[in-house]
Amino acid sequence: MKNRADNSFKDMTFYIKRALNLAKRAIGHTSPNPMVGAVIVKNGKVIAEDYHRKAGQPHAEALVLKKAGSEAKGADLYVTLEPCCHLNKKTPPCTKAIIEAGIKRVFVAMIDPNPSVLGCGIKELKSAGIEVYSGILQRQAMRLNEAYSKFISTSIPFVILKTAMTLDGKIADAEGNSKWITTNEARKEVHRLRHSVDAIVTAKGTVLADNPLLTSRIKGGKNPVRVVIDPALEIPEDYNVFNDSAQTIVVYSKSDSKEKGEKINKLSHKGCKLMEIENSPIGLKDILYELGKFHITSVLIEGGSSLNSRALMERVVDRVIFFIAPKIICGSQSLPVTSGKDFYRLNEAIQIDEIEIKRFGSDIMINGLLRYF
Amino acid sequence: MKNRADNSFKDMTFYIKRALNLAKRAIGHTSPNPMVGAVIVKNGKVIAEDYHRKAGQPHAEALVLKKAGSEAKGADLYVTLEPCCHLNKKTPPCTKAIIEAGIKRVFVAMIDPNPSVLGCGIKELKSAGIEVYSGILQRQAMRLNEAYSKFISTSIPFVILKTAMTLDGKIADAEGNSKWITTNEARKEVHRLRHSVDAIVTAKGTVLADNPLLTSRIKGGKNPVRVVIDPALEIPEDYNVFNDSAQTIVVYSKSDSKEKGEKINKLSHKGCKLMEIENSPIGLKDILYELGKFHITSVLIEGGSSLNSRALMERVVDRVIFFIAPKIICGSQSLPVTSGKDFYRLNEAIQIDEIEIKRFGSDIMINGLLRYF
Repeated sequence: MKNRADNSFKDMTFYIKRALNLAKRAIGHTSPNPMVGAVIVKNGKVIAEDYHRKAGQPHAEALVLKKAGSEAKGADLYVTLEPCCHLNKKTPPCTKAIIEAGIKRVFVAMIDPNPSVLGCGIKELKSAGIEVYSGILQRQAMRLNEAYSKFISTSIPFVILKTAMTLDGKIADAEGNSKWITTNEARKEVHRLRHSVDAIVTAKGTVLADNPLLTSRIKGGKNPVRVVIDPALEIPEDYNVFNDSAQTIVVYSKSDSKEKGEKINKLSHKGCKLMEIENSPIGLKDILYELGKFHITSVLIEGGSSLNSRALMERVVDRVIFFIAPKIICGSQSLPVTSGKDFYRLNEAIQIDEIEIKRFGSDIMINGLLRYF
Repeated sequence: MKNRADNSFKDMTFYIKRALNLAKRAIGHTSPNPMVGAVIVKNGKVIAEDYHRKAGQPHAEALVLKKAGSEAKGADLYVTLEPCCHLNKKTPPCTKAIIEAGIKRVFVAMIDPNPSVLGCGIKELKSAGIEVYSGILQRQAMRLNEAYSKFISTSIPFVILKTAMTLDGKIADAEGNSKWITTNEARKEVHRLRHSVDAIVTAKGTVLADNPLLTSRIKGGKNPVRVVIDPALEIPEDYNVFNDSAQTIVVYSKSDSKEKGEKINKLSHKGCKLMEIENSPIGLKDILYELGKFHITSVLIEGGSSLNSRALMERVVDRVIFFIAPKIICGSQSLPVTSGKDFYRLNEAIQIDEIEIKRFGSDIMINGLLRYF
């Protein structure tokens, strides 16, 4: 397998980028499947393009091959993820369809990290005499499907920790005011973020302080599952997180007090799922493992100092997104973005890589991947 | 006075930019004078360019007029600050020299905020029949001379608060380690900053914790005056801030204990200036006022949580420069960038305007002007 076509590197990236943009249209809708876009090009012309809409619906490759029909013969296929080859499904694999359609060359952005694919799709195509090139805009493709990639190989959801703080690292003033630290523009981005994940994880403190809805209030936004950590089930059942605008999982710790039993009944009656965790204090690792069983591939942590610190000290966070408002409030009683009795020494600090900085209104977003030593 | 020449806006900004770049060569050297650059252009050709080197040396206008000689007749002068007109000096004002040289048009970036100039330079030039245009790249010119502008009109130094913190707002871990939060590149920028100001202000806590030199360790760097706030004179006299690599002013509070008297003698003997402040606790406003009397036009605050918070709560800071390392350490015992018993409510927070974001190595610099309500 060559790493690039001899004389059409510009074309390759052009069409893969086009396929990536198609794939992105399905942000928030394909889980637990990846987002995939595909483009068929013949004689320098796009003859079909499409993307995978949601789990259970046809793959991007199937959609474009159907659109192209007999025109696919001798054409090039650009696809953002290695076509599938696995046979433990009722539907035939994409490789078979690509070979039968007479596709001449296949350009792939990234290998499918699914252990049952992982290169075998490319191998099958090559065995059938198709030229295959892979790794084109691989970084962008991996970024798009980072949650899928982690989950498919570990069964643990991809974890994003989001916070909004002042420039001096506070998430609320000493009187508890946190509405609003950031601008409308930054908060809109948070709603887009919520739409993109399968679940939001929060804890009692934040719910009692802010009574948030934790829904995605943008046009066409999908509400992720709300996961509320409330070990002793202390949040009153009329709080917003228990309403019916989204599914809610309440995580509590094992104990058989009578009050807990009653509260469990009430919450179940309201449609909440109850998740009992045996270990105390409740570890985020345990919660994430359990959420994985529900096919939750990605979670957004939206909590306070305490949840932030626990998640970071337990090393379960994959990506952080800090919205920094250009404001200063000072005060040792103001709420810091992280706290806790545990800490990293400076020379053992968690490092953040692949940093992206963006402005949302006057706010500054710092976004990056965590590297633990 | 027109705001721009009819058909040469591009030229105007081109030459004013050139003059600004010349002016910048004197960063750190002209105080208490402003930095000024000048360019003389005739028939589309630069015939002379220069900049003010330091207080006591000729003004930029005088330098270029001398270089241009009789060629100045009928030429255009581009200058970053309004030429001086005041008469309370031995040397004749620049306006007189410009008029006598026969300059045809004068392009000015900003009015001189010096109360004894403030438009009178432009007025004199116009009275002599010279075409004058002003406000060209005014923002950049004002940024360059922000310290001069504040000091000349208030006699209070311009105050920059600089800090280096982790993404989660800590300036040291719970064991006090702060070396090094940021990269070499960011620390080099701090040395450039030190070179650019007249004085650095720090306090006892930082000196005892880090024993810093507070000098500008870059090529050609000028060491600013070190101002050390040590109310009870507790810092041992063999600490680095008292060495002879730069001038040091020690600020202490009034009291006539015998130990203090002895310490004052020792420090004076080492060449330090002693500054007694009557009010207790010592207010930063008082210190800045006193420093102004020594013609210190700009200070860089480099302290810990406590000094940062005091300066911000006393509203004496004009500009903040936060170096943010992409690291997270957590911990309620880690040192936060601000603390203190006083705080602003979220809706009264200090706002930061005109934000500039730059990368230094992997670090992120957020730089802006403070707006107090």
